[in-house]
Amino acid sequence: MFPKSFQKLIDHFSSLPSIGPKLAERLVLYIWKYDKEKLDDFSRSLKDLKEKIKFCRQCFNISEQDLCLICSDKKRDQSVICVVEEPLDVIAFEKTKKFNGLYHVLGGTITAQNGQDLKISELKNRLKNNGIKEVILATNPTTEGEATALYLARSIKPFNIKTTRLARGLPTGGDIEYADEATLSGAIEGRKIL
Amino acid sequence: MFPKSFQKLIDHFSSLPSIGPKLAERLVLYIWKYDKEKLDDFSRSLKDLKEKIKFCRQCFNISEQDLCLICSDKKRDQSVICVVEEPLDVIAFEKTKKFNGLYHVLGGTITAQNGQDLKISELKNRLKNNGIKEVILATNPTTEGEATALYLARSIKPFNIKTTRLARGLPTGGDIEYADEATLSGAIEGRKIL
Repeated sequence: MFPKSFQKLIDHFSSLPSIGPKLAERLVLYIWKYDKEKLDDFSRSLKDLKEKIKFCRQCFNISEQDLCLICSDKKRDQSVICVVEEPLDVIAFEKTKKFNGLYHVLGGTITAQNGQDLKISELKNRLKNNGIKEVILATNPTTEGEATALYLARSIKPFNIKTTRLARGLPTGGDIEYADEATLSGAIEGRKIL
Repeated sequence: MFPKSFQKLIDHFSSLPSIGPKLAERLVLYIWKYDKEKLDDFSRSLKDLKEKIKFCRQCFNISEQDLCLICSDKKRDQSVICVVEEPLDVIAFEKTKKFNGLYHVLGGTITAQNGQDLKISELKNRLKNNGIKEVILATNPTTEGEATALYLARSIKPFNIKTTRLARGLPTGGDIEYADEATLSGAIEGRKIL
């Protein structure tokens, strides 16, 4: 029903997560009203994504340089590594401004399929070479994330480096009445003296 | 915090309607994992949008040809014109398969700013030249849509062509208890003998 090239772009948008066919139609119509300059810039940015963005050779975060901005920042604490699943997790930590160490992006969690793809041996290499004093296992508090953290803790043990896991408890703004059992159990176990 | 070219694409996505900054981040990370071929195709589709898609010279619907697929289809009833606000409205009608006439896309509704941009004089030209028997005013049932329909009805009057408006009533699957007063009033006024 749509012209071919219009439909093609709709298909591209609706194949993205959280974007249904209706929203895709609206987006394409909205974009179609852009001036040529803005549209070309959008198109070029997409193309650049693959050409300009690569993995940091040390932490495997996304980067335009060989070494990402965090790894190449000599003011950061080089002795702490925070291990996360995905690049967006790095952004989440950076937004808190509470962590000044380095990261290591695994690229996912351990599942039956992908055990090989995760950057675990690369993490071990980093632990070998540098004066690392602490590894924070910051995988998600999900079944897969927990399994990955346990596996990593065991793999790291021979290095005799302090290994920590993020605190579990009630999220800020949360409601005890609606908290699930696992969260509330974590909050009780991890309670602190005031 | 993101590499520059990554952030640029996030900005493009988050400037789209219904896409917030968080979703934009997720989308860009998702797209980044595309293979090069798919990404280039997405980029090219965006570029093509402006280059390949134009307005049909008769009905002002989006089209790859000079005359859109609907206007150039001789099997359609050339004597009925359904006047709509936007190209997506055409698609909505086409999906019903209940209308076999032609369309006329106004490009919006009458507001203080844009009265000049709407394709109203072009509509009048179509009414002059052809054997049109009916004009269906299918602007949205909103204040602006109603005002536009009233204005069009008055402009069309001299042509002495049957002018109709879409029925107002309860939407299929709707609930009388939750229907607003205007909708329910429309449903009572437009009631039909069984």
